Amino acid sequence: MNRLRQHIEEISPITDEEFEVIKTFFTLKNVRKNQFLLHEGDEVKFEYLVLKGIYKVFYLDENGKEHIVQFAKKNWWMTDYTGFFTQTYATMFVECLADGEVLCLTLEGREKLSSEFHKMEHFFRVKLTNGYVALQQRIRLLLSSTPQQRYEEFSKLYPDLMLQIPKKYIAEYLGVSRETLSRLYSNTK
Amino acid sequence: MNRLRQHIEEISPITDEEFEVIKTFFTLKNVRKNQFLLHEGDEVKFEYLVLKGIYKVFYLDENGKEHIVQFAKKNWWMTDYTGFFTQTYATMFVECLADGEVLCLTLEGREKLSSEFHKMEHFFRVKLTNGYVALQQRIRLLLSSTPQQRYEEFSKLYPDLMLQIPKKYIAEYLGVSRETLSRLYSNTK
Repeated sequence: MNRLRQHIEEISPITDEEFEVIKTFFTLKNVRKNQFLLHEGDEVKFEYLVLKGIYKVFYLDENGKEHIVQFAKKNWWMTDYTGFFTQTYATMFVECLADGEVLCLTLEGREKLSSEFHKMEHFFRVKLTNGYVALQQRIRLLLSSTPQQRYEEFSKLYPDLMLQIPKKYIAEYLGVSRETLSRLYSNTK
Repeated sequence: MNRLRQHIEEISPITDEEFEVIKTFFTLKNVRKNQFLLHEGDEVKFEYLVLKGIYKVFYLDENGKEHIVQFAKKNWWMTDYTGFFTQTYATMFVECLADGEVLCLTLEGREKLSSEFHKMEHFFRVKLTNGYVALQQRIRLLLSSTPQQRYEEFSKLYPDLMLQIPKKYIAEYLGVSRETLSRLYSNTK
């Protein structure tokens, strides 16, 4: 739970007494490679704070084709947020790509933490702000016309993910073929 | 300013005394059709709450091609959020498509309102939550494989925008040609 406190205190310093209450809202979960935290059709009960591991959030289109909406790594939050915030069923999957640990938080917990602690409302607002900026960048990446531009933008934003995530998923995330991605990789070496 | 109060109170009820302080952070601006609130390269001083009018937020790629990141209408907030939150220069434009009015808020004002009023921090967190969900839906729309799927998703989410925004901009937003869009329009009549 120390990692949770560190993560919160990067934004909102809190007292020992406050943390004693705050931590009761989170539960720890170990996750194995290829394990799913969420399936399409599930109730979206939790959002997840990644302590360890790499994850992908994706959905399947009408033809069964997979589309990756986001990756997540240490200190990132993830879930099917449309399902989570509107308390409906998941239209997305969350899959673990490398053994890890996550902390689980319910929407009720999130709202209670936010209303009881102004500091936590601040924490969540700042995290959402960062998330919003990241999604806007993701949209620009998708709108960019060439695979080369997408690749360059992604590798500039997330050099660590380039090393940790199998190339086939990066190709899918960028909406380019694996062959094109391999060509781009070798061009930059 | 009553419209501002109404807008805030949809999420956070506030007292008369609180509103007297809160409203001092906002300035009203009238905007004419085709006027720009923001140009690429400008300092991003404000975010804007739309009181009236229709707006588009877009950027130009290396080849000078325009890409629309979002539209905005009454009660939506808009700006180049990457530039605004990181206090750097705009990489996007904000253009007015139909005469309107906006309220302007600085980042300093936003942060001060949030730290002085837990209710306002709550307000901004909820607005960001909604914005986050909208961006995630925008990403899914972009990832969806066919123009038909994009068109259907957009018209389901924003039936009012379908009527208010010139078709050429909708085509651009969806990443489809105007001919394709016209075909899709006539198919659904």
